[in-house]
Amino acid sequence: MSDYTPPLADIKFAMEAIADLGAIVASDRYSGADAATVEGILAEAGRFIAEVIAPANRDGDTIGSKWQPGGKVTVPPSFEVAYAKWVESGFGAMSFDPDFGGGGLPWIASIAVQEMLTSANMGFSLCPLLTQGAIEAIHVHGSDEQKATYLPKMLTGEWTGTMNLTEPQAGSDVGAVISKAEPADDVAPGAWRISGQKIYITWGEHDMASNIVHLVLARTPGSAPGTKGISMFLVPKFFVNADGSLGDRNAVQCLSTEHKMGIHGSPTCVMLYEGAIGWLVGGENEGMRNMFTMMNNARLSVGLQGLALAERAYQQALQYSVDRQQGRAIGAPAGASSPIIEHPDVRRMLMTQRAWIDALRALLYTNAAAIDLGAAARTVGDRDGARTWQELTELLIPLSKSLSTDVGCEMTSLALQIHGGMGFVEETGAAQHVRDIRIAPIYEGTNGIQAADLVGRKLAMRGGAVITDLLDEFDGRSAALARVEGCAAYAEQLSHATALCRTATAHLGTVAATDPRALLSASSPYLRLLGTTVCAGLLAKGVLAVAGKDDDYHRARIASARFFGEQILPTVSGLLPSILASGAPLYELSAAQLASR
Amino acid sequence: MSDYTPPLADIKFAMEAIADLGAIVASDRYSGADAATVEGILAEAGRFIAEVIAPANRDGDTIGSKWQPGGKVTVPPSFEVAYAKWVESGFGAMSFDPDFGGGGLPWIASIAVQEMLTSANMGFSLCPLLTQGAIEAIHVHGSDEQKATYLPKMLTGEWTGTMNLTEPQAGSDVGAVISKAEPADDVAPGAWRISGQKIYITWGEHDMASNIVHLVLARTPGSAPGTKGISMFLVPKFFVNADGSLGDRNAVQCLSTEHKMGIHGSPTCVMLYEGAIGWLVGGENEGMRNMFTMMNNARLSVGLQGLALAERAYQQALQYSVDRQQGRAIGAPAGASSPIIEHPDVRRMLMTQRAWIDALRALLYTNAAAIDLGAAARTVGDRDGARTWQELTELLIPLSKSLSTDVGCEMTSLALQIHGGMGFVEETGAAQHVRDIRIAPIYEGTNGIQAADLVGRKLAMRGGAVITDLLDEFDGRSAALARVEGCAAYAEQLSHATALCRTATAHLGTVAATDPRALLSASSPYLRLLGTTVCAGLLAKGVLAVAGKDDDYHRARIASARFFGEQILPTVSGLLPSILASGAPLYELSAAQLASR
Repeated sequence: MSDYTPPLADIKFAMEAIADLGAIVASDRYSGADAATVEGILAEAGRFIAEVIAPANRDGDTIGSKWQPGGKVTVPPSFEVAYAKWVESGFGAMSFDPDFGGGGLPWIASIAVQEMLTSANMGFSLCPLLTQGAIEAIHVHGSDEQKATYLPKMLTGEWTGTMNLTEPQAGSDVGAVISKAEPADDVAPGAWRISGQKIYITWGEHDMASNIVHLVLARTPGSAPGTKGISMFLVPKFFVNADGSLGDRNAVQCLSTEHKMGIHGSPTCVMLYEGAIGWLVGGENEGMRNMFTMMNNARLSVGLQGLALAERAYQQALQYSVDRQQGRAIGAPAGASSPIIEHPDVRRMLMTQRAWIDALRALLYTNAAAIDLGAAARTVGDRDGARTWQELTELLIPLSKSLSTDVGCEMTSLALQIHGGMGFVEETGAAQHVRDIRIAPIYEGTNGIQAADLVGRKLAMRGGAVITDLLDEFDGRSAALARVEGCAAYAEQLSHATALCRTATAHLGTVAATDPRALLSASSPYLRLLGTTVCAGLLAKGVLAVAGKDDDYHRARIASARFFGEQILPTVSGLLPSILASGAPLYELSAAQLASR
Repeated sequence: MSDYTPPLADIKFAMEAIADLGAIVASDRYSGADAATVEGILAEAGRFIAEVIAPANRDGDTIGSKWQPGGKVTVPPSFEVAYAKWVESGFGAMSFDPDFGGGGLPWIASIAVQEMLTSANMGFSLCPLLTQGAIEAIHVHGSDEQKATYLPKMLTGEWTGTMNLTEPQAGSDVGAVISKAEPADDVAPGAWRISGQKIYITWGEHDMASNIVHLVLARTPGSAPGTKGISMFLVPKFFVNADGSLGDRNAVQCLSTEHKMGIHGSPTCVMLYEGAIGWLVGGENEGMRNMFTMMNNARLSVGLQGLALAERAYQQALQYSVDRQQGRAIGAPAGASSPIIEHPDVRRMLMTQRAWIDALRALLYTNAAAIDLGAAARTVGDRDGARTWQELTELLIPLSKSLSTDVGCEMTSLALQIHGGMGFVEETGAAQHVRDIRIAPIYEGTNGIQAADLVGRKLAMRGGAVITDLLDEFDGRSAALARVEGCAAYAEQLSHATALCRTATAHLGTVAATDPRALLSASSPYLRLLGTTVCAGLLAKGVLAVAGKDDDYHRARIASARFFGEQILPTVSGLLPSILASGAPLYELSAAQLASR
């Protein structure tokens, strides 16, 4: 297995040339840091992650986290060591509120750390990721006492957090949750007794932290059916005494963990709440609203997993392609044996990965920047700016989550392919990336649900104008691109793609009101078309920012963007027929006809 | 996990409406069977496979075949039982020479059995598959004595066979083999001593059969370098006495087995030959020629794995989509919970699988039929016919192998996706299909090598006319299709796709002589474009054959073909820019630039 190299230059490029880090750090809200500071912190984080976290990745897969009789979950020894160092490092707190020990940096900086952490060790990274979601929920919706009691130790990572949504009958359909909460004023004023079984709880139980703070969705007595009657409760594994020390164990336990295709290092727990004591986070029946607060960041982070594993797998495949001698390159002397990187089809696989990685990073960091710029605008009371950035954030989220995780699966598989037979042998490590990333198109809202969100909620924003505004921006950029040497074909493809997106968007705008089946039937191909076009449009921004720079690094970024525009972007043009088709062809066969064989 | 249902109606449809089983059984060579006989045998085989072989699939994954100290390899107990029944059944011998106990049926009938066997249990199916390859090599190139000694027991499956090509330094580059053969006339006239290490030897060692017949590539003293100096040897695990009983153990042992991503049931062995005694199969230095004899059938069989696992995974996903209730279908009353098959995006995933399965079956069975019709023509001395069928066989092989295995990976992944979180949990069985099939794009010539074969050898046949003849046929078919009710859009897309194929083919014909890098750079996208178009053209044949039939089954086949033509075929149109691009964009970045991050 190859080592992991933090892609610091690429991250800097995505942040500065594409995602406008400059504007973020120039804002009042983030005036505490400049671009150079962020860069310095990321360099330090990257070094730490490569040295401390990445080496434990294989243990996560082979040893895994394991349920033990009695409900204990053990992690690989190397995870325990790495986690202790992670807590020490403080990188988990960098974008959180300084009042609770955070660093107050923009979110995009955390996203960069998270990318590297995920590349290094996806199973491990899920523990800080879930904690981050719980911090956010408590920070925005929790009481002052909850914040004071829980946030400082969660920010350091001494305590970790979980999200408890799913139940066997309530997966994509969160409204079907039946876990119950009943008043427990006998225990303490404002306390509730939580009962129910939750499944797929990531890092629901483990022994790396001294306490675990569970956020649990449940129904209070007499609550409305569906999502409107769901409340969120904070249920600590160990009660916290008034002096901050840990008290008794709460009535929550891990019944079992799942045997999964990948991320073996991350325990996926079945949690049983048997009258566990918890406290409302936010108001009664506001659980779904609270979830929505975290949703954008969580979905962006899962999208990031696609990029992160594509990056890690690519680094390994590239190294293999340089080392492995097999066959004779074109023009090499008879009898010579050449590194496989010299073979055109291997080059195609490498360039495809390289270009997609640049493209996904452009998309995801732009999405993160939109979150920061929205927050910056809100801070200074710029309501128009805040709305504009919020709209862009909302539009990009389903693209970031779905496109990046789908492409992450495709690219890790290409990286495996480059290894030939070795790729199928587990010791090589290439297969682990393919297995690990396969969950990402499923959790945090399946990619089908993201697509429904795109054509449902997001397309409807300002009657589709959020999308067409972005396409207008790309058209302007494609005109500028046409004047850059060597970029005429890229510009033409970009302009063609935006035209297809306009056709598709206008069509879906029309059917949205009259034919929901046609709208939803088109959702996934539309997401792929729009997402790929947005990637190409954002990469073009990077090209324009550095066009003319005559160093190897920037020439490589331009070549990669051009390859994306000329050879990857066109592959989505053939999705238009599926988008314009009605829903009828999908329903022409009955279930019985689908099954007849 | 769902049961496996043999797709007998679909196989019959592919054979009769598309692949011309009628012409095969009407030939002198295969006059022993009619279509109804074949159908009856397949029904019997399907029932046997579903009842006996399929239930062992999960054991193959969870227990696996395991190397034991001393070089023994044990298989799951259920494999041993299933294999004994397989031997009893006689289905392994149905297409082989009656002189050695075979059934003399056309190859396409064996392909159908093989499809079902692979769907049922891919790891298991590799044992009969490798045996079949060894039988073929011995039958065509072996001496009369070798045939008499080995074939009867190999045809029943009492003895199994292996192919020993790969060495650590010789994977895709078979010419780099260094295993040695030295004359051992001291042992017996014509005997050789074989020494060397072979890797990735499928079913190289196991305890299901009483003997294993290894075919081993090695170099004799003074042989030419590269592929020209390679000979093939027959090396039995146990020597066979003159009376047919088994004698001493040969000096070949299994050093270890690989830990693989999938097909855990199939032991992938490192084999050590330490002066093992063997005999030439065919002449000295004719090893590669012998390999080529088996290559088409072997590649077709691996292609079949893509179809077979797509089928198995689809059956399971369809059942899950009917059983699983989640969310509310469009138009369902408030508060209702609907089976997920009612959701448009799930329908899209199901229809995509269904249509691809029909398409791949059309391609693979047509390929098998071309092999049979070629053999039938040769039997009656029809040289023109033999050449025409041979050309079609040769053209289709790389399409069958690559397209089907790539699509097999994509479709098993879609099937997993339909299961949501359950798909990532191993007990569900959906993940096993994804893991099992991932080897198929790699072995038996990586898909990159298939693409090189397509643009190298196959495109050059009759100056590209083998391809354009087929495109002419499709154009004629698309004209006919345009007159079938509801098929105008399909016809138009087919005609558009053939035009793209003509442009691409003409371009590659031009650069073939002058710019090998441009040719090879285009190879993979060209294969996908041509292969998908061929699928659409073959499905059209089926539509024309049954158009107007007004029963549920045939309406479903037509709807599936139309979906393929209208919504899947167009997705390859965007590959043309990659095909027409020169090789330059793939080489614009140096290895250092690819690595800079």
